[in-house]
Order: sequence, then structure tokens, then C-alpha cells
Amino acid sequence: MTEHSALHGKLALFDGPGEPFRLKELRVRALQPGEMLVRNIYTTICGSDLHTYCGLRQEPCPTVLGHEIVGEIVQLHPDHPGVDLFGEPLQPGDRVTWTIFSSDPASFHSLRGMPQKGDGLYKYGHVRVSGEEAFHGGLAEFCVLKAHTGIIKLPENMPASVAATINCSVATVAGALRMAGDVKDKNILITGMGHLGITCAAMCREAGAAWIAAADITAKRVDDAQRFGADGLFDMKNDQAELRGILRERTGGKGIDIAFDMSGSPEAMEFGLSCLGIGGCAVWIGAVFNTRPLQFSPEYIIRNLLTIKGLHNYNFDDFRYAFDFMRGNWEKYPFGSLVEKEFPLEAAKEAFEYALANRPLRVGVRL
Amino acid sequence: MTEHSALHGKLALFDGPGEPFRLKELRVRALQPGEMLVRNIYTTICGSDLHTYCGLRQEPCPTVLGHEIVGEIVQLHPDHPGVDLFGEPLQPGDRVTWTIFSSDPASFHSLRGMPQKGDGLYKYGHVRVSGEEAFHGGLAEFCVLKAHTGIIKLPENMPASVAATINCSVATVAGALRMAGDVKDKNILITGMGHLGITCAAMCREAGAAWIAAADITAKRVDDAQRFGADGLFDMKNDQAELRGILRERTGGKGIDIAFDMSGSPEAMEFGLSCLGIGGCAVWIGAVFNTRPLQFSPEYIIRNLLTIKGLHNYNFDDFRYAFDFMRGNWEKYPFGSLVEKEFPLEAAKEAFEYALANRPLRVGVRL
Repeated sequence: MTEHSALHGKLALFDGPGEPFRLKELRVRALQPGEMLVRNIYTTICGSDLHTYCGLRQEPCPTVLGHEIVGEIVQLHPDHPGVDLFGEPLQPGDRVTWTIFSSDPASFHSLRGMPQKGDGLYKYGHVRVSGEEAFHGGLAEFCVLKAHTGIIKLPENMPASVAATINCSVATVAGALRMAGDVKDKNILITGMGHLGITCAAMCREAGAAWIAAADITAKRVDDAQRFGADGLFDMKNDQAELRGILRERTGGKGIDIAFDMSGSPEAMEFGLSCLGIGGCAVWIGAVFNTRPLQFSPEYIIRNLLTIKGLHNYNFDDFRYAFDFMRGNWEKYPFGSLVEKEFPLEAAKEAFEYALANRPLRVGVRL
Repeated sequence: MTEHSALHGKLALFDGPGEPFRLKELRVRALQPGEMLVRNIYTTICGSDLHTYCGLRQEPCPTVLGHEIVGEIVQLHPDHPGVDLFGEPLQPGDRVTWTIFSSDPASFHSLRGMPQKGDGLYKYGHVRVSGEEAFHGGLAEFCVLKAHTGIIKLPENMPASVAATINCSVATVAGALRMAGDVKDKNILITGMGHLGITCAAMCREAGAAWIAAADITAKRVDDAQRFGADGLFDMKNDQAELRGILRERTGGKGIDIAFDMSGSPEAMEFGLSCLGIGGCAVWIGAVFNTRPLQFSPEYIIRNLLTIKGLHNYNFDDFRYAFDFMRGNWEKYPFGSLVEKEFPLEAAKEAFEYALANRPLRVGVRL
């Protein structure tokens, strides 16, 4: 496997919060068994990339940020199974996206349906650049996909800017719906209407939810939610007791069945819990950074038969569900409008600064 | 239905914490459609009876305490379906126990599998004595079973002192196992080794748990747990970080899969959460009284894919499961030894004082 050993590619190295990106050109190493080389086409900047950029979470540096990626297959190692997660054959030139992680499918957590916590876990956009291991993030011209990475071949008509979000935001929301159980005919509250929140609204709508309340502290985001299937729009800056009363009334006194938190805000999680009806379920995926501790009464959880579930990342079923959802619905809901501005790789810093200053749902990097 | 309208029975009225029981003799009212009259044979005093007696929780008074009851059928209203929850025919003279509650089976929560929160909820041992409504608790010679109460006919060889606990402690533990999902091959931690805890240990053992750790702050209770199937016995008065380390080691570094809290202690619930491995589940049934709020990090819940579930009381499936479990196992584990002392109805006060002073797993009232 020395076919592309002379191949070189550009990447934007991240050295830590406050450091400028370093644009470098490095050699792409030869593929190992089971691997695949992809030329990155498009990367969207995820909220967690911004958190790392700001120092709200820490990754081993130097690293290559960006994990919501679409690419084109350059080469498959002869040992690669050569099919995607739906059994579709893969070949050079195919446009694909892939799971944010790879791990040992035979390990303990993988066998329990949590491959995102399996042994040998490797996460694109979260790995330290060292020696020849450099092409593992979205802010680079290439990405080497490790063995056991879940790959999905993309339909020709799906824009890269839409497809890029499938492997993080959309798949994690798919996981959240799996954790919540059946959302059909349920009353839903979603706190935090960033990309996760609006995707959650649309996914709940398509899954047959009875009523969907969307809440955020940013009025514009609340407005956006309506275009993604939300019925009730709530500004969290208003009095919480009053909001709770309105939700209670709108659900015929029963309370919310499922409260998704996509914001990571302790206040939002506590509010969601307080809105649940008997037997309700809170699903939290937003707080993947340090927050103040939550406080609540165990008697309240017990007497109301409540469930709280946390989810980090997703599994292969979630990824497939996310793809199916987007294939069927990216034109029905305005997913095509979520990338507000695009930048080239050379302007990585500008892309992050724009995202932080303007808080659009997504910024894209076209490679 | 005036057949027994001249029937009178004794009962011990509870007027509130610190008040002496008032022994009275009242007329038993005529049965209404769907009802059944039972002569109480045996009542065990539950932890929640003690909490009410002490004022740690409040019930509408005057009331008739006691809800873990075994009785003998005196009369069925002609409209009663005349079968128990397994379809066994019921007739006067049959020895039975029954769900702690009755409610409207067509109501919202009943249809969602939570009849214990259904409309028209009526809970034996928790109802105010008013007018003719007096015989609804265990500390009385009779009990009028409302329509839609789940009834189970008891095998002849099962002692009343064993059978009495099925409809509260054992059924709630059955519900906790249902909430936990499959316990087979799982590593279990149980905090609080009262009647709930030791029943949980035995039920997990029979359901194929891999390893069961039992923890309590009372050394004698920890010792008891061994006779009920626990593998590891832990004194919660020891250093918690050290205990956590031992549990981690005993589970091959994976951590606990399911942490049941039967104690209601905030420290125990927080400890259980901190012992869970990735994908672990905490099930809380103990805290049915006011405690200090719990504190924890949502990031910890999310990154470790943890679930927290609260359960209050149980549903009909749980009650059937509890009965099947006890029928099959009351002789295998020493359930027959759990009532340490028995009292007559006239000595209700002595029974409660003995229970509070000596903290046996159960005290019995033989009627």
C-alpha cells in the first residue's frame, strides 16, 4: 500500500485556545488494513469545535478540528470490506460521510450497543497529531478512515453542507430519540434550539409527536424552530413558573412526556425536569462540558416515575437512522439554509471567529 | 347487598404522629358493585407506615394504617368478576392478598402502564376514615376491596407473614427490576438492606445477576443480605472512595451496571451513581419522603450514558411477578424469618414502638 505514499495534503493545525491555526502541508501516510483514504470536500463547524476553540473543553493538541465531514473516496485498502453500513459497494470517487468514531467491534461496550465507548476508541477531529498520524480531522484536505469506521455513501442530490451534519448533530439526535423510546403521540419539550434542537424538532415531527414545544434564550433561534416542525415557541428568558403553567395547560394538565435538553444549560435541564408529567423522561445530550451541578429532589423523581437519560455520541443504528431521516427530509425542512457562511481552509480562524461572533446554526469550510 | 349490613369489626384508628391509636368497633358498610369484603388475617408494618407514624410523611387522618395485608374472602358483590389476576376463581374462604391501590383501568396513566397513578386512585392504608368508609387498612378486622383492585389467591403453604409483604415491598422491587431492564449477567449494587434491599438481592440472584453488592450503614443488615443472595457485603460507614475502588476492581474495572437504591438516603443515591460504569442505570425507590436535594454533574451523566429511574409503587405485572417470585423462593431464602415479633391488633402501639426501637425487617400484626 504505497500507492499514494507521495501524496501530500494541507491541514490547519490547532495548538490550543488563543493560538492561531497553523496551515501546514504534510505527507499522507500509507493505508493500513481496513483503512480508507478520503479527500475531504466539506466540513461544518460543530458546537463542540467552538467549545474546544474557546477552551471550554480540552483536546490533546496539536489537533485537526472538525468532525462533521463529507469526503470523496480516494483509495480503499485491499482488506477493506468495501461496503457501507447499508451494504452498498464503495469505490473511489464515491461521496461519503462516516461515524465520528471507530472502535473495536468485539469489545465490551461495542457489544452492549455503545461502540462510541468501545476499546481502541478513535474520534475524528479529537486526535493528537503525532508522527505520521495527521489526517484525522475535517480541517484538512484528506482524512484516513480507520478500520471499523461506519461509512455511508451519499445520494448525489444531497448538498455537502447538509450531509456534513449527519455524523454528529443529526446522529446524536437520532440517539436521543432512541433513548426516549417511542415519541409517537407524545408531548415534547426541546430546550436549546441550535442545530441539535431544530433537528430534534423535525425528527420528532416526522416520528409522529403530538405536540412539540421549543425553548431557547435567543429569540431568533426560537423563531427558527417553527420552520423545523415546532408547534409552541417559548422564550426561556420569561418567567419559568409561567412557562411551566402554559406547558401544563397545553398538554391538558398532563405535563410533558419527553424533555430533550440540547443546550447543556443547568437551568434548562432543571426546567425540563420540572415540566415532566408522571412517567416522563428527560434526555440530555447538550452538556458535554463542565457546568454547575444540578440539584433536584429524589422524592420528586420517584413519586412522578421520572427517567433521566444521558447520551454522548451515538451508535451505528443511530447513524443509519440519521441518514435515512436526512435523505427523506432535508428538502421538506430548510436544512439547506443552515450554513450561513462558507470559508476556505486557509480562513479557518475567520470561520471560527465568525461562528463565535454571529452564532449561526452552522459555518461551513469548503475544501 | 345488605347481607352483612349488621357486621361490625374492630379497627385501630391513627390520628396523627404522637397520638395514641384509638381502638373502635364500627359497622362494615354494604358492598358496592365490583367490591369484595375480606376479613384481615395478618398485616406487616411497612417502612412507610413507620414514616407516617413518626410524622416523616403525612396521610389524611384519622386513617387505618397497614397496607401489607393477607385476608380471607368473606363476600363478593354479585358484580365482582370473581377471578384473581391469574384468572383463578375466587370464593368466600379463599386466602388472598391484593394491590396496594385501585384506580380506573381506563384512565390515562393506567393505559400507560401506571395504574398506581390512575384516576380515582385509592390506596389501602392511606385513606381518611369518614362516614361509612372505614375499613380500608390493615390494622382492622375487615377490609373492603374496591372495584379494580388486583387480587391474588395465595397457596395454602405460604405463611401469612411471608405473603403479606408481596403487595408492597416485593411488588415494588419487582417494578424496580422491570425499570432496570434485564439484570441477567449484570453487576448489581443495592444500597439499603431493609426488606426492599434483601428482596432485591434475592430477586436479582434468581434473575441471573452476575454479582450482587449489598451496602448499608447497619452492620447487621449487611450480614442479613448474604442469606438473601448478595455476594459482596459493604459497610457504608467506611470510606466511600475506597468502597468505590473495591467495586470497580470486583467488576473488572467496568463499574456497576445497575445501582438500586432502597434506602432513600441522598448519600446512598449519590454513591450509587458514582459507582456506575458506562451505560449504567440507577433505579431509585427508597426516597418516598422529603430529603435534601441531590447534586450531580450532568456532564458525568451524559459522557457515561447513564440512566436514572424513579419508581413509586408498581403495576399489575409487577404484582404478578412478585407473587411468582415469592411462591418459588420463599423457602429457598429465609423470608419466613423476617417477621421478628407479632402483636395483636389491640397492641398496635406496642407493635410500632417495637419496630422503631429495634428496627427489625418486619413486625407483624395477627388479626
